[in-house]
Amino acid sequence: PKQFKATLFPGDGIGPEISEAVVKILHAAKCPIEWETHIIDVRSKKPGEMLVSREALDSVLRNGWGLKGPMETPIGKGHRSLNLTLRKELALYANVRPCLSFPGVKTLYENVDVVTVRENTEGEYSGLEHVVSPGIVKSLKVITRDASMRINEFAFKYARNNGRKKVTVVHKATVMKKSDGLFLKCSREVAKNYPDIEFEELLIDNASSFLVSNPSRMDVMVMPNLYGDIISDLCAGLIGGLGLTPSCNIGENCVLAEAVHGTAPDISGKNLANPTALLFSAIMMLREMGLREQASSIESSVFRVLSEGKIRTGDLGGKSSTTEYTQAI
Amino acid sequence: PKQFKATLFPGDGIGPEISEAVVKILHAAKCPIEWETHIIDVRSKKPGEMLVSREALDSVLRNGWGLKGPMETPIGKGHRSLNLTLRKELALYANVRPCLSFPGVKTLYENVDVVTVRENTEGEYSGLEHVVSPGIVKSLKVITRDASMRINEFAFKYARNNGRKKVTVVHKATVMKKSDGLFLKCSREVAKNYPDIEFEELLIDNASSFLVSNPSRMDVMVMPNLYGDIISDLCAGLIGGLGLTPSCNIGENCVLAEAVHGTAPDISGKNLANPTALLFSAIMMLREMGLREQASSIESSVFRVLSEGKIRTGDLGGKSSTTEYTQAI
Ligand SMILES: CC(C)[C@H](C(=O)O)[C@@H](O)C(=O)O
Ligand SMILES: CC(C)[C@H](C(=O)O)[C@@H](O)C(=O)O
Repeated sequence: PKQFKATLFPGDGIGPEISEAVVKILHAAKCPIEWETHIIDVRSKKPGEMLVSREALDSVLRNGWGLKGPMETPIGKGHRSLNLTLRKELALYANVRPCLSFPGVKTLYENVDVVTVRENTEGEYSGLEHVVSPGIVKSLKVITRDASMRINEFAFKYARNNGRKKVTVVHKATVMKKSDGLFLKCSREVAKNYPDIEFEELLIDNASSFLVSNPSRMDVMVMPNLYGDIISDLCAGLIGGLGLTPSCNIGENCVLAEAVHGTAPDISGKNLANPTALLFSAIMMLREMGLREQASSIESSVFRVLSEGKIRTGDLGGKSSTTEYTQAI
Repeated sequence: PKQFKATLFPGDGIGPEISEAVVKILHAAKCPIEWETHIIDVRSKKPGEMLVSREALDSVLRNGWGLKGPMETPIGKGHRSLNLTLRKELALYANVRPCLSFPGVKTLYENVDVVTVRENTEGEYSGLEHVVSPGIVKSLKVITRDASMRINEFAFKYARNNGRKKVTVVHKATVMKKSDGLFLKCSREVAKNYPDIEFEELLIDNASSFLVSNPSRMDVMVMPNLYGDIISDLCAGLIGGLGLTPSCNIGENCVLAEAVHGTAPDISGKNLANPTALLFSAIMMLREMGLREQASSIESSVFRVLSEGKIRTGDLGGKSSTTEYTQAI
């Protein structure tokens, strides 16, 4: 059987605890993965310095797989966001965020099952900004045909491979006729090659309204970078927040799964954190590796533990420790 | 007592019916308003031609007040959006969209009471787009100190005048450090002059998540143009959709209240449409006119009719006609 090597960035705050939990669970499920741990020491960096070392990046590129705990970019020190640096340097062009209602986790919504596929490299995230004169700033939103075709291809392929029925492109081409217009045009082009997948176009404002009033209307959604940032967090809110929702970045040469919640310094080191978001991110990585059996068996264990409702962490109203929850899974 | 003149754009589809309903109700409430009706005939315009005539614009500017039914910009004929033209030509710098749960209208949420204050003139709506080379498009997001100060001043003043407790600025200054950074800086500056109003900063992604999981955490929200487009529709979704939510555009020289829902061609001319969104938009205009008593008396009539639940239009699951509902109010 194939052996995998994967880079592990444990992260800050609760990062090390939940990473340890995830590694243990994957080990128990007999995932043939050897971990190469890299500590990204954000605090020791000089102002403006690159937060991620060359070694760390090379490790992911060499292994092809990475798992990243929560980390926060220090504010006001001129650092480029750590997340954005990783996405850029590793050419992670697709960000996939599935939101599936958890059994036993009560929210206002039942049976949410949507996936945000977010273009991860351009749009308002170009980083190109310009002070024209004092008090007048221009930011560039960049949309290219290459990146738009690539993400749309990805979304439709993802839909087909995962038994999904519909892809909705979310845009605002009525206002940004040229930039979002180009993205939309690419969606339409790609959709033609997937007659088995229903195709729908929705304005970003309408999509936000529908997701709130009737999320089961949605399936896979594909969209430019900034919309993806907003919509994926909206969807996370539907099923109980960022503490539960996984995220996986896909590139040409590597995959980086990540927890997108914060480092929760208030509970860090206290064995109280919930590793579910990071665990489900890891499960996404397992599926990309082709380890579908292990992925499903871990997933069903989590569902069982959560629906039994006896063992759950504090964020879900329970009293269990991270290790108790991990053990139960 | 003061007499007002106001311009009425009845709009298309269900526009004329619901405008008639609103005018009747305002008349019954003894609002001292004389209406000057302008038909904006979108369909007769040549491709690329300006959709709103000079006379129509001048009418609003002369009267200082306008009420607009739903209208849609024909797609693919090179017209500039009708809504955007009105906002631009009338210098309507603030767009205010309150979302308040309606008694008797069941959604997943109870007691929603939030207001989106949206910068209405710049951001991604600059209209400046540029095809750099085939397949590479740049759109300009423009943020200026003038517009950002003005909208933030407006939001805090609105909060104070309407007995609100908190203003939340919604931004993404972690990524758009310069443009959203400037907007955020203006929020902070203005906030200092309103020690009686609590001030909060939230990233647009977090705001979307919180609005879905716990909307009562929010009060007044102020933000750049595109975020306002998205967040206000999200909020509309919380209370039952665009068919119920009012919108009012405020400029230096005039006020234009508008229904933001569609023209509903499927039910147009059938006396089935729900005039509530346009009516509540008109109520916002009344408040701006200082006609607070009339505004409140109409509002409480609507609340009474809706909570009794006997007379309601089809969109709310009832069987009443537009005229029955209007009569009841
Ligand atoms: C940390 C931040 C730069 C990032 C983003 O905006 O993409 C985060 O919100 C996310 O969604 O992963
Ligand atoms: C019609 C469209 C241009 C407009 C906007 O994007 O502002 C609409 O969605 C709105 O919110 O009033």
